[in-house]
Amino acid sequence: MTTIPDSMRVSVLHAPTDIRIEERPVPTPRPDEVLVQVASVGVCGSDVHYYEHGRIGDFVVNDPLILGHEPSGRIVAVGADVPSERIGQRVSLEPGVPCRHCSQCRRGAYNLCPDIVFFATPPVDGAFSEYVALAADFAYPVPDSMSDDAAALIEPLSVGVWANRKAGTAAGSRLLVTGAGPVGLLVMQVAKAMGAAEVVVSDVDPDRLALARQLGATAVLDPREASPAESGIEVDAFVDCSGAAPAVATGIPVVRGGGAVVLVGMGGEEMTLPISLVQTRELSLTGTFRYANTWPAAIALAANGDVDLDSLVTGHVDLEHAEDSLAPDGAAKHVKIVVRPNGLA
Amino acid sequence: MTTIPDSMRVSVLHAPTDIRIEERPVPTPRPDEVLVQVASVGVCGSDVHYYEHGRIGDFVVNDPLILGHEPSGRIVAVGADVPSERIGQRVSLEPGVPCRHCSQCRRGAYNLCPDIVFFATPPVDGAFSEYVALAADFAYPVPDSMSDDAAALIEPLSVGVWANRKAGTAAGSRLLVTGAGPVGLLVMQVAKAMGAAEVVVSDVDPDRLALARQLGATAVLDPREASPAESGIEVDAFVDCSGAAPAVATGIPVVRGGGAVVLVGMGGEEMTLPISLVQTRELSLTGTFRYANTWPAAIALAANGDVDLDSLVTGHVDLEHAEDSLAPDGAAKHVKIVVRPNGLA
Amino acid sequence: MTTIPDSMRVSVLHAPTDIRIEERPVPTPRPDEVLVQVASVGVCGSDVHYYEHGRIGDFVVNDPLILGHEPSGRIVAVGADVPSERIGQRVSLEPGVPCRHCSQCRRGAYNLCPDIVFFATPPVDGAFSEYVALAADFAYPVPDSMSDDAAALIEPLSVGVWANRKAGTAAGSRLLVTGAGPVGLLVMQVAKAMGAAEVVVSDVDPDRLALARQLGATAVLDPREASPAESGIEVDAFVDCSGAAPAVATGIPVVRGGGAVVLVGMGGEEMTLPISLVQTRELSLTGTFRYANTWPAAIALAANGDVDLDSLVTGHVDLEHAEDSLAPDGAAKHVKIVVRPNGLA
Amino acid sequence: MTTIPDSMRVSVLHAPTDIRIEERPVPTPRPDEVLVQVASVGVCGSDVHYYEHGRIGDFVVNDPLILGHEPSGRIVAVGADVPSERIGQRVSLEPGVPCRHCSQCRRGAYNLCPDIVFFATPPVDGAFSEYVALAADFAYPVPDSMSDDAAALIEPLSVGVWANRKAGTAAGSRLLVTGAGPVGLLVMQVAKAMGAAEVVVSDVDPDRLALARQLGATAVLDPREASPAESGIEVDAFVDCSGAAPAVATGIPVVRGGGAVVLVGMGGEEMTLPISLVQTRELSLTGTFRYANTWPAAIALAANGDVDLDSLVTGHVDLEHAEDSLAPDGAAKHVKIVVRPNGLA
Repeated sequence: MTTIPDSMRVSVLHAPTDIRIEERPVPTPRPDEVLVQVASVGVCGSDVHYYEHGRIGDFVVNDPLILGHEPSGRIVAVGADVPSERIGQRVSLEPGVPCRHCSQCRRGAYNLCPDIVFFATPPVDGAFSEYVALAADFAYPVPDSMSDDAAALIEPLSVGVWANRKAGTAAGSRLLVTGAGPVGLLVMQVAKAMGAAEVVVSDVDPDRLALARQLGATAVLDPREASPAESGIEVDAFVDCSGAAPAVATGIPVVRGGGAVVLVGMGGEEMTLPISLVQTRELSLTGTFRYANTWPAAIALAANGDVDLDSLVTGHVDLEHAEDSLAPDGAAKHVKIVVRPNGLA
Repeated sequence: MTTIPDSMRVSVLHAPTDIRIEERPVPTPRPDEVLVQVASVGVCGSDVHYYEHGRIGDFVVNDPLILGHEPSGRIVAVGADVPSERIGQRVSLEPGVPCRHCSQCRRGAYNLCPDIVFFATPPVDGAFSEYVALAADFAYPVPDSMSDDAAALIEPLSVGVWANRKAGTAAGSRLLVTGAGPVGLLVMQVAKAMGAAEVVVSDVDPDRLALARQLGATAVLDPREASPAESGIEVDAFVDCSGAAPAVATGIPVVRGGGAVVLVGMGGEEMTLPISLVQTRELSLTGTFRYANTWPAAIALAANGDVDLDSLVTGHVDLEHAEDSLAPDGAAKHVKIVVRPNGLA
Repeated sequence: MTTIPDSMRVSVLHAPTDIRIEERPVPTPRPDEVLVQVASVGVCGSDVHYYEHGRIGDFVVNDPLILGHEPSGRIVAVGADVPSERIGQRVSLEPGVPCRHCSQCRRGAYNLCPDIVFFATPPVDGAFSEYVALAADFAYPVPDSMSDDAAALIEPLSVGVWANRKAGTAAGSRLLVTGAGPVGLLVMQVAKAMGAAEVVVSDVDPDRLALARQLGATAVLDPREASPAESGIEVDAFVDCSGAAPAVATGIPVVRGGGAVVLVGMGGEEMTLPISLVQTRELSLTGTFRYANTWPAAIALAANGDVDLDSLVTGHVDLEHAEDSLAPDGAAKHVKIVVRPNGLA
Repeated sequence: MTTIPDSMRVSVLHAPTDIRIEERPVPTPRPDEVLVQVASVGVCGSDVHYYEHGRIGDFVVNDPLILGHEPSGRIVAVGADVPSERIGQRVSLEPGVPCRHCSQCRRGAYNLCPDIVFFATPPVDGAFSEYVALAADFAYPVPDSMSDDAAALIEPLSVGVWANRKAGTAAGSRLLVTGAGPVGLLVMQVAKAMGAAEVVVSDVDPDRLALARQLGATAVLDPREASPAESGIEVDAFVDCSGAAPAVATGIPVVRGGGAVVLVGMGGEEMTLPISLVQTRELSLTGTFRYANTWPAAIALAANGDVDLDSLVTGHVDLEHAEDSLAPDGAAKHVKIVVRPNGLA
């Protein structure tokens, strides 16, 4: 069994572009928690945004903050109420633990819990850290065949599962996905895994479109060459993963009557929409905010090979070089960078 | 049995504000149709709009058009495939007959049928006419206890039923309804009839707010005095019946996470929305376009006394004076005017 | 503020028909709990069954058990994590607190939690007791206008709300409810409050049928005179509240294609069903097990006067006479008896 | 263009085991119909049952009947309202055309239409015939890459799609499928194509279990060796494709709380079910009756290679030997036999 040290190294954001390696006490798991030695942590656009700007909307980094909310690892200790058999399990971590008492939690929409404690969201620390403690039911065992990186990327895959649930994706569905970053590519892969007939991916970056094709998109689209409408497509659901107003405005007109519009990418506070189309076609427009009850499905999709997570990882850094993964010029050339808090090994 | 004449009087819109009484042949019902002697026709805001402007969006009155799409009457003849027992039935007419063959029709969303034939929508004539022919399954018997006016107003009541279905109204629901015209008042009444706990109605007209209260609203709101947010309400669903952008923008922030936003009132082509709220709260935003499969429920609500339709009628005119009901200054002082093509009786 | 004594009187079932009044320590609320001085407790058929037989299916009264799971009362103390403002609130208690961690809890189906702690279900004590402690979020404030008895009967009313949710009751629905006991009468009342067009209640007891009529049933039926099919009805949903195999078997044939069958009444382990009807009509058959997320809606329905709870109460007893409410001959002549642990007052 | 003859050969069932080849006039398509030269017709268990017994339940072969309801072919003529461009299309035929006017049709549940005209269901003739006429919207184009046999087997594949819709199959679902005949194998394949994590197939025939494995079942089960419960599985949905009461009774106990039970296989009129399990776990039990709105999805699944139809075909016969495909001893050794009314080609 692993010997657990008293202190650990963490990567702390003090101010925009000011990241420091520090020493912190290793947390003691509460009765319903597990202590996890972190293996891999995916770097997300929101981590990059906090690093650059020190805030995302109303969430402001006023105090030093540990980033990272896509972690995997191994359970090394358990709280009093958790079976000790869990020690040693390789796990993927769902990084937000809700209050479990409010009406949103009780109706199953725990992602909307106003008191959720979510990694790397001020003032809650994240996982760029050698160890983290988390509620035991939010640490999910993964099969041996799944890599640590893939176990970490169950988090963005969950975003893809959730978006497809909102989109009503089913066997035979036709989708438009705008934005071929990690989330868009995962939305597309999940749609295919759910039996979608057509998944058209739109982006302005030819490399990302090539990757989309390679991972299963049935068609790709550069909106500078032809808008979705000009491409002649009609879809049952449109999932925006770009957050760009023009992408949303040009995507909506190709959704069939009664279809779905799901806004995953975050843009500004307001957006101007072709609302009479939404009305006369009775489109259902919604957004996604994290996810709920997605981990088991996401793990199954990755374990079965229905979704390819490892191909999305284009770089690794250790904790000391986490900052490299956050600097925009470094991040831009990657699909997904993974931080390894306990070493690259 | 009624003797059916060869010709009938109709009220025809030739150009904006140019309405003429003309003589037309009485239609012969096709095999699957009934011929109805029209009793009452509610006047809708869209009729007023066509009268004033000669168009609504892409629908343009290029050729002479008979207005009126909220009719009731009595079956006086039937097509070859319709049982003759139906002759004599008092009926409420659902004024749009779909193609029955397209994918929208076949999945039950016939209101989204691209080939629907809908009364008083260019180039299809409406019901300001002594007689109309319609598919037999779109002419619904009403009980003797229901007035001709109420049977006509099953149409706007259906809009209210449909809006509440989209809103997910259920026992205990809390709603905000903006706009206390006939549709807003009916959305409110239906919500109450479905067991809603709270229905707050917002309007700037104190008379309409008073009527809202009288018909069952649990609270009313003048947005010039306090916005919904300032009023401290939180709702499960927000139904806009005003089409006004400020009403929509100030209504959305009081919807709880996971709640519904239903846009019934038509405004312009585009609308600027607080989209990050829609996303972070995962609100479901949609519109309504007419209705589908609502007549039986609407008739039951009116017949049971759960909804009061007769109180909405504030004036009657005969066919010769239909124009009075369409002139905006006349229309403005009314909640709902009813045209009686066969005389005021 | 109420002075809380150290000990309290409780009514304890030791063995079938062996009920004794005993003295127990008043419980100390845990951090997330409230302590409630019990006002009214409805007596349920399951209480009667435990009293007579000492078991219900696999649930066996091996150790002394306090019965009663339909309680109302007043908060007299709170745990460390509960705002002290709650002291003094009159509350209705939802009598089952789930684990909040399992997959059923997390998806919102907490009534299916295998570790739920439910009042008066061995080995968990119930509310025939002067005081009870319960999770604060399962104690719901009620308005002053609601009686203590009505606040207690929110529990069976919740059964009625849940059954109607399972039945898909909506505006215009037609239902058959078999069994006009308290639950059947409440299922009927909730259906009416949700806008049902027709609710036919079936029972063999003419007094109960008369009460059903008085409380709003649109028709009543004595199955010994005419089966549902012989009565010529067709319904969208059939809710059995009798648990009697013949009621179920004769109810199913009157459900329209695609309709719902909801089995609320518990009968034996097995039941023979007309399964080819279920198949060829694609009926959805399910049962109800308690309820989830029903209290707010139920309180609203009762507070708005949509459902009449007080009329169901036909007798009161104090704690010392709780046994009178459990003896079958006493219970049979009542619709609903209420126990008042702190005195009849 | 094909020259259409005046008469055609058909295979007619006159009485149990009495099949004769006859000459009939080629039908003339009505205005909304197409005329199809039949290429392949799958033989279904119901065809075999009519051949042996002359009836299925209330459907009795009183007059000579043409069997076969799983046809594909090529459009050779069109009715007046159908675009002539459709001539030449290779099509899969959905073999039941509903009335389009009743409440079931109008709500999208056209499979429950009481007036549906369905191939090979007395008194409606089927497709063991050189030509058939059918409503144009029920003849779906298939891609060139799809074989005639696969185009025919879109019909049983639709049964599989429909069953999975009823089962609520989604990414990550776990299913038990009892009965590994063509329908069971297709239910399994569709579940896998929709992202199911686990699909356990149960049958007593080792060859069918081997085929199930080959086509993607994650596990197989011989119930004579171990019941589902003894196998230690838990599933989200259980789909019975056997119609056998013991299969249903032993399958239900492994369904998790809130899960689905879908009865596809037809057994007797009545069945004894473990009803208290259905109740206390709130299982949703339903059956399937044909399908609605499944063809586009089914064609997409087959065209994408998500489902393998050609591997199910184990034999072909021409029209003269159709009887060989219906004799039980011939049928038993096959998974799926295909009749080729226009020759084996």
